[in-house]
Amino acid sequence: MHRWSKLFIPTLREAPSDAEVASHKLLLRAGYVRQLGAGIYSYLFLGQRSVNKIVAIIRQEMDTIGQEFLLPTIHPREVWEESGRWTGMGDNMFRLKDRKGAELCLGMTHEEVMTTIARSELRSYKQLPQIWYQIQTKFRDEPRPKSGLLRVRQFIMKDSYSFDIDEAGLDLSYNLHDAAYRRIFDRCGLEYVAVEADSGAMGGSQSQEFMVYTDAGEDLIASSTSGYAANLEKATSALTPVIDLEPTGDGLPELVLTPGLGAISDVTAFFGIHASQDIKCVAFMGTRTAQPGTTEPLRPVVAFLRGDHFVNETKLNALAGTTELRPMLPEELQLFIGGPAGFLGPVGIAEVMTHGSLNGLNSGKPLDKLKGVSRENASEGLKTIVVMDKGLEGRANLVGGANKLDYHFRNITPGRDFTPTLTADLRNILEGELDPIGNLPLRLGKAVEIGHIFKLGYKYSKSMGATVLNRDGKEVTPIMGSYGIGVERILTAAIETSAAKNGGEAYALPASIAPFQVIVTVTNIKEPALVEAGEKIAADLAAAGLDVLLDDRDERAGVKFKDADLTGVPYRIAVGKKLSEGQVELLDRLQNQTLDIPVEAAVQTLRNLLGK
Amino acid sequence: MHRWSKLFIPTLREAPSDAEVASHKLLLRAGYVRQLGAGIYSYLFLGQRSVNKIVAIIRQEMDTIGQEFLLPTIHPREVWEESGRWTGMGDNMFRLKDRKGAELCLGMTHEEVMTTIARSELRSYKQLPQIWYQIQTKFRDEPRPKSGLLRVRQFIMKDSYSFDIDEAGLDLSYNLHDAAYRRIFDRCGLEYVAVEADSGAMGGSQSQEFMVYTDAGEDLIASSTSGYAANLEKATSALTPVIDLEPTGDGLPELVLTPGLGAISDVTAFFGIHASQDIKCVAFMGTRTAQPGTTEPLRPVVAFLRGDHFVNETKLNALAGTTELRPMLPEELQLFIGGPAGFLGPVGIAEVMTHGSLNGLNSGKPLDKLKGVSRENASEGLKTIVVMDKGLEGRANLVGGANKLDYHFRNITPGRDFTPTLTADLRNILEGELDPIGNLPLRLGKAVEIGHIFKLGYKYSKSMGATVLNRDGKEVTPIMGSYGIGVERILTAAIETSAAKNGGEAYALPASIAPFQVIVTVTNIKEPALVEAGEKIAADLAAAGLDVLLDDRDERAGVKFKDADLTGVPYRIAVGKKLSEGQVELLDRLQNQTLDIPVEAAVQTLRNLLGK
Repeated sequence: MHRWSKLFIPTLREAPSDAEVASHKLLLRAGYVRQLGAGIYSYLFLGQRSVNKIVAIIRQEMDTIGQEFLLPTIHPREVWEESGRWTGMGDNMFRLKDRKGAELCLGMTHEEVMTTIARSELRSYKQLPQIWYQIQTKFRDEPRPKSGLLRVRQFIMKDSYSFDIDEAGLDLSYNLHDAAYRRIFDRCGLEYVAVEADSGAMGGSQSQEFMVYTDAGEDLIASSTSGYAANLEKATSALTPVIDLEPTGDGLPELVLTPGLGAISDVTAFFGIHASQDIKCVAFMGTRTAQPGTTEPLRPVVAFLRGDHFVNETKLNALAGTTELRPMLPEELQLFIGGPAGFLGPVGIAEVMTHGSLNGLNSGKPLDKLKGVSRENASEGLKTIVVMDKGLEGRANLVGGANKLDYHFRNITPGRDFTPTLTADLRNILEGELDPIGNLPLRLGKAVEIGHIFKLGYKYSKSMGATVLNRDGKEVTPIMGSYGIGVERILTAAIETSAAKNGGEAYALPASIAPFQVIVTVTNIKEPALVEAGEKIAADLAAAGLDVLLDDRDERAGVKFKDADLTGVPYRIAVGKKLSEGQVELLDRLQNQTLDIPVEAAVQTLRNLLGK
Repeated sequence: MHRWSKLFIPTLREAPSDAEVASHKLLLRAGYVRQLGAGIYSYLFLGQRSVNKIVAIIRQEMDTIGQEFLLPTIHPREVWEESGRWTGMGDNMFRLKDRKGAELCLGMTHEEVMTTIARSELRSYKQLPQIWYQIQTKFRDEPRPKSGLLRVRQFIMKDSYSFDIDEAGLDLSYNLHDAAYRRIFDRCGLEYVAVEADSGAMGGSQSQEFMVYTDAGEDLIASSTSGYAANLEKATSALTPVIDLEPTGDGLPELVLTPGLGAISDVTAFFGIHASQDIKCVAFMGTRTAQPGTTEPLRPVVAFLRGDHFVNETKLNALAGTTELRPMLPEELQLFIGGPAGFLGPVGIAEVMTHGSLNGLNSGKPLDKLKGVSRENASEGLKTIVVMDKGLEGRANLVGGANKLDYHFRNITPGRDFTPTLTADLRNILEGELDPIGNLPLRLGKAVEIGHIFKLGYKYSKSMGATVLNRDGKEVTPIMGSYGIGVERILTAAIETSAAKNGGEAYALPASIAPFQVIVTVTNIKEPALVEAGEKIAADLAAAGLDVLLDDRDERAGVKFKDADLTGVPYRIAVGKKLSEGQVELLDRLQNQTLDIPVEAAVQTLRNLLGK
């Protein structure tokens, strides 16, 4: 049992004005942390106690699948040169020199150092698989540290690395991590989703991020209770069927005068249709990031999709082979599509495009706005791509622009009236659409990453020359995985999630990671009966194995209640006036419920709530 | 229960040739650690498991007296400028710049950062006392990293800091640490001594180092079982009385021809006396470290002590007010004492000294050998100091040099025949002499520091402007203490201590900090009965709460035994041929005993050995 009167818990009535997100404000107000510099925090008693509980859970679960190591923080430059990342890490890496001038860096991650151990110690397939983990402070020189503990320059990470003889082995190590991570996050009381992540750039084959929804996050994800989850740039949905319009006239595209009706809402109102019965055209000029000293051509990229849908530029870039997109300028629209904004459409676009010519442009100005493009190489940019969103597949009799000022077509039927370069998913999914695997409604929102598992492949083992002998006595390169959990992210995500349900000003931590499980508040220490009862309840709870904080301070009840609120400890027992009736007040902060219970029932009630 | 077959324990038959001390060799051979760079080590499974056990003990005991924090590793320069230590720490501090060019350092110690928290959060005496601790990696750019984990550039330290309203409070915080440290080191199974340390230079008032005897250490200490312990430069002893010689002739100093007898052994043989009946003269030129741009004079420093005693130069420097000593050169001996080496003595020395003059020297060369000394200021150096060791106090009729080639005096009686500038303790104590408080034999030897407690005083709280209101509403400066434990030092000291008893090639760790408490070795896994029995014993031990490693590898028994030896795990149960007689072999590595015990007795025997 801890006594508040003996502890250092510097609560604040107000959060510092520069605290942005709820967890930042609350961690400061509750006396969990104090800032030392940009992105650098000191963890005080409550903060460190919570961190220790998270670390203990992680350690316990990781011990079931791997072995704990502790690698150095200071790394010689040479090790990072071997993997090619000394340069690649750029300014994110803290670098320093020792007294002899040798170049060092502070570890941001430990693929390189782990691989030095593997290559000098692993000799045979018999020694595989290996899973080695550590729990350790990492350093990254964030360009814009912010959001309290969410984006910092030093933080505690559980990182692990697997070494396997083949891909089947790696699958197993990866799955062991997947399962262990789920146990860890479950025990930490987090609501999380596991998102398939893009891993192409790292040369790996599979990658998954564990995310927690919070507006304090910086990633956008979609998920459903079926287990489907994806980053917005990967997410798809199962569209509910929409009703096509009946054809009019001979059923072929029919030109309709729509004077001044450039906006979709105007068009749908004019025709008396739903936006899903309209074709939207979004036209871009795209290019790729140029290598130093070279230039990349501009390429027209035209997307067609339902009038109520929106383009996801990441998806479109991937489809078009571009890395940057900007809207076409009026003269480009005229040149490549043949109509003005508001009246663009698919009919005849292919013909227009083959007839267009960059030389027909009035001026080179618009092209020059994209880096690396010049008039000389722009003609190559004429390889236009027209992408139709899958949502238009099989549809008929749609309304769309006629590529002619103040005119629309009706009766547009994809396939019959136009043929895109390719048909693919290019749109942002929308909140409430159904997920593609379970047909359950999708939740769309910002999220923060708390963990990441990743099939690295051979990148480090190969570049650093790690080999083992296989069953046939041949030298082979072991295949690696790397896996991370952000310790403080677990704490902040838990606070953000709870604070979001409490208007951002209050929160309750899951009992497993709260600094204490229960606070016993003696409302007035000048009344011996209250003190005696509070001491006894706290002692009984402690004897039952609960982690108890007794608020025995000589403060007004109001002050004590406010302080207890700030700590986020999920349960509070107040010993006050109703003691004369044999009752104490139990606050269940997770359920936002207050309940009078008999003094004798306190221990059993808490044990039930904590599942003990 | 852990299975060796699933673990990564890369034992080595040979230690790398650059490993110097026993713990370094054994930590490498047992697969506890691997080196990444100079003074930078990776802790592998066994090493980290041991470190975790030590950390758990420290945390448990520190929680009884203080609150755990975790402060940043990266500190802004500004914080260290405030205390004046940014410059003071010199090259020992790792320094770096972030991407914006801001200057940072890696924390070597945390007085400054702790004080920033104290000064912004502590307002009143009511919030005192506070003891804040952390367990964390520290960084020091050691000029000569060596001896494995004994002198490294990053290491884990428990550091704590106390804030009190007055000296009585500090005494209490200091004593709480003293007691907690003793519990920690006791639980870690270390034989340690607590040595009063010199704390003058740090501005503090009291300081104590916890030391473990080992030849791998770099400090010299003396201690006895009475509880007396001191660094060699502070140690004194209670001398056993010696018998003075009977006077000869008229009892006054009598000149004796002693041709060629310059060595004490020759003199004592010639006179038929014991070295304790002889006066030794040791003559130095001393100086002080000069401030930049200034020079310090040379000063003759002459010490007299018993013929069987030796000068401690640290003590002599302190007495003479010097910081460096070097032996006098022949011309200096002639000038300041008047005799040649081998025939120096106290009689008449005062007269010689007042007559001597630096200008009489043949050349300025010898003086120039000491930095900061020049012929111009050397005349000031004539303020000679003659120190007589306390061991000569009250003695009579000693033999000593006559300051004349080939002559000695007998019948020299201090006080009557010469008067030193001062009489004080200036000698090294000797092994086996009696300690000054309990009259028990002193042990003298090298030792390594595992912990340090220190009354800091007001140095940081004052320079950094921390104040609180006292009981009378006045602003006062809190008084601080700082306290450290080296986590890896505990492990290495334990290994060194045990290895010293085992010829440096083997060791046993105390069960509390060994990576496992017991290893169960199945000598041949091809025999199902042995496997079954081994599995059962290991499972039973684990069920009884013991930390068990089952060696289930398909290796020869000899290999398994050697590997088990290397781990330092204190107990081993071998399941082998005697199983047919219902017996297993218990090796108690701490006692170096092997014993056959009945299978059924294994659990209870181990429980008894482990005190469970």
